[in-house]
Amino acid sequence: MDKRTKFSLDENQIPTHWYNIQADLPQPLPPVLHPGTKKPIGPADLAPLFAMELIKQEVSTERWIEIPDEVRDIYRLWRPTNLFRAYRLEKALDTPAKIFYKYEGTSPPGSHKPNTAVAQVYYNKKEGIKRIATETGAGQWGSALAFAGACFGVEIKVYMVAVSYQQKPYRRIMMQTWGAKCVSSPSRDTRTGRDILARDPNCPGSLGMAISEAVEDAATRDDTHYSLGSVLNHVLLHQTVIGLEAKEQMEMAGVYPDIIVGCIGGGSNFAGMFLPFIKDKIDGTKPDLRIINVEPESCPTVTKGLYAYDFGDEAKLTPLIKMYTLGHGFIPPPVHAGGLRYHGMAPIICHLHRLGLVEARAVHQIPTFEAGVQFARAEGIISAPETDHAIRVGIDEALKCKESGESKTILIAHSGHGHVDMAAYDAYFSGKLEDYEYPEAKIKEALADLPKVPA
Amino acid sequence: MDKRTKFSLDENQIPTHWYNIQADLPQPLPPVLHPGTKKPIGPADLAPLFAMELIKQEVSTERWIEIPDEVRDIYRLWRPTNLFRAYRLEKALDTPAKIFYKYEGTSPPGSHKPNTAVAQVYYNKKEGIKRIATETGAGQWGSALAFAGACFGVEIKVYMVAVSYQQKPYRRIMMQTWGAKCVSSPSRDTRTGRDILARDPNCPGSLGMAISEAVEDAATRDDTHYSLGSVLNHVLLHQTVIGLEAKEQMEMAGVYPDIIVGCIGGGSNFAGMFLPFIKDKIDGTKPDLRIINVEPESCPTVTKGLYAYDFGDEAKLTPLIKMYTLGHGFIPPPVHAGGLRYHGMAPIICHLHRLGLVEARAVHQIPTFEAGVQFARAEGIISAPETDHAIRVGIDEALKCKESGESKTILIAHSGHGHVDMAAYDAYFSGKLEDYEYPEAKIKEALADLPKVPA
Repeated sequence: MDKRTKFSLDENQIPTHWYNIQADLPQPLPPVLHPGTKKPIGPADLAPLFAMELIKQEVSTERWIEIPDEVRDIYRLWRPTNLFRAYRLEKALDTPAKIFYKYEGTSPPGSHKPNTAVAQVYYNKKEGIKRIATETGAGQWGSALAFAGACFGVEIKVYMVAVSYQQKPYRRIMMQTWGAKCVSSPSRDTRTGRDILARDPNCPGSLGMAISEAVEDAATRDDTHYSLGSVLNHVLLHQTVIGLEAKEQMEMAGVYPDIIVGCIGGGSNFAGMFLPFIKDKIDGTKPDLRIINVEPESCPTVTKGLYAYDFGDEAKLTPLIKMYTLGHGFIPPPVHAGGLRYHGMAPIICHLHRLGLVEARAVHQIPTFEAGVQFARAEGIISAPETDHAIRVGIDEALKCKESGESKTILIAHSGHGHVDMAAYDAYFSGKLEDYEYPEAKIKEALADLPKVPA
Repeated sequence: MDKRTKFSLDENQIPTHWYNIQADLPQPLPPVLHPGTKKPIGPADLAPLFAMELIKQEVSTERWIEIPDEVRDIYRLWRPTNLFRAYRLEKALDTPAKIFYKYEGTSPPGSHKPNTAVAQVYYNKKEGIKRIATETGAGQWGSALAFAGACFGVEIKVYMVAVSYQQKPYRRIMMQTWGAKCVSSPSRDTRTGRDILARDPNCPGSLGMAISEAVEDAATRDDTHYSLGSVLNHVLLHQTVIGLEAKEQMEMAGVYPDIIVGCIGGGSNFAGMFLPFIKDKIDGTKPDLRIINVEPESCPTVTKGLYAYDFGDEAKLTPLIKMYTLGHGFIPPPVHAGGLRYHGMAPIICHLHRLGLVEARAVHQIPTFEAGVQFARAEGIISAPETDHAIRVGIDEALKCKESGESKTILIAHSGHGHVDMAAYDAYFSGKLEDYEYPEAKIKEALADLPKVPA
């Protein structure tokens, strides 16, 4: 067991390939269906929105997909990221558990998001696309795509969920600094947005609505593609650089995790961490590995949603995806972890959950910030409110070890810093936060409108 | 010449010693004088405010001072920091110059400041101190000391210049998250603060006033010491980890800088970069090395101030320091680079300026943000407004190379990210910024009150 606190890799150890879980799934993913025909979609259906290389990656069953040199060149700005042993947190908790965290907060936008943003912009640019439209919740994805757009000289248009646009102006200004155009969603720039505003001029927006706007934008302009920052298979694929590096680093530390925890909104950051590890659970090498997906009680997609085909967006423009869903009409309460408020979830994570390979847990907002503050004071890093969800459960599991006397190894997927989210911490300190459990009745109501799909 | 964009060191290459320029100065620094007797002060005069080890470092002429293991352990969280070749910026400028930057923005508080904060808190803790009082301008120093306080379990009280306290709430909340207490200065917590507020209830504050408050706090409490985030010799000493690493990294890149640029407020970040290099200019190895200190036109300490003995604070509590000064009564306009608004300057920088070993240049606010935006779009990193001053002159020098056809090597000291300063960028984008040149008449007025010191 190494006594070091930091396990860093050389830049030559940035992975050369992404890991594709579709090569190793015990059962294949359910197909994605066309919203009209309800038949499985093909590449041609997606071509108006996505670069062909990304469409191929979406359905590929090759285990290793090469990372282009141009993408690795940009990765070098912050990758490999460091893995840390949280000795001071362990001491503060007085736990026999060994706690590690892999920290993605040193990227230029401060989160894991550019791991896929850079790849997506690269492939689009290579295929002649001049402009990309996207949506963003808390603004982490939008700012990451804006950063990637600046790296490759591609124009970026971001539809930002209205409540975050107001609550988190800093992310909007970051996008502007990188040269992207960011508007509050619902906006007047799309038919979808105008329709929603006609019904409700003060609509706080939702990720589902913003997706509708971005998809409409891309579908109606020849020079424009669409980009999604989570959920889709190719997005999770790009994020596996996190887990691939972490596996090397845990080996350097001489340990293998008993428990991996991470937060899930669309699921990409955490899947990026655990997919390279779950391979070992699937092939029987590490049958006892536990993977805990953490979501907010205010948006309990996996813990309280339905596993069913649903639209990815509010206006029913996207293909139908088999996933845990709270219904595409779900409008989450304006909690501060804006990145975790999506009605659906990455199909890969949902599928693994159905197969019993991963678990899910929902946590409340106030104990989540409590964990974030404890982590900041022990480890020195102020985390994004999203990340605080992972830290909450990491601490909970470490405290269980304290009770049982077990010395488990816990690996936390740390998705980014919270420097742009200090207003949320301010709300916590000033007692303005409330725990919010989404009412079962409202979930039932939102789920009543699920599309009918032949068995 | 290496074609890489990033030059990273292994964590074992974190320097083991700080470099002390006082061993190599062609003439010694002028003594610091007691404010009452006007005689050189001794260790006993400083003992109520500083740890004895820091007082020793302040006057030491040993060339190398060992970095304690406990300090290096914390440094590991973000050190060694990366050196980058700015290929994309060079291309955007179409310059034959080679531009490098050393990036301190990956530390937990996002700037270079913890390099000394961690050391100062460590020595104070070791000498039994339970509580440290300090001042902060833009909040970078206060948040760095709060971070260091959390690392070692020492209580931190921060007096934050009122205008920044209002303009930059995020830094205040960061301090709170790390467990520090932060108040707006002038405050009601000290006699100095109460006196100022009695004269001017809406006083925007100044670094000089905040220093007075923190010094009074420390001087009137037995369990409390004072800490300064810049100016003093021991602070610059701790920052030399930047330049020592950069020297190794420039060697990895196979180049030596022709020009080093950095921003100066109190001077510590930039001195930390250039001191290990200036050694080569002093000993004649690199006679042509140019070192450009960049300050704002709104606070032109070196370019328009007087080289004279002055107080470090507004209330005349500190010893007298020989430095360039705009007068201890100087109240800077509320420009956005809050970290560059101090009336004085590090005596080491001033001394080197008098010896003709370094240059100074003042720049305006709007072209500074222009440079920051250009840098963000080319290099992907959004910089602190302070850092944008260094980038402005780095770009200007690269553009001169374009005219002359010279291929100079320019090294920029990049002191931190701007994620917490997005309101300043917003003001820039929305046309609310104005260039502000400090009126010569007002400087003269402030300088009229300099203390009289026998020759």
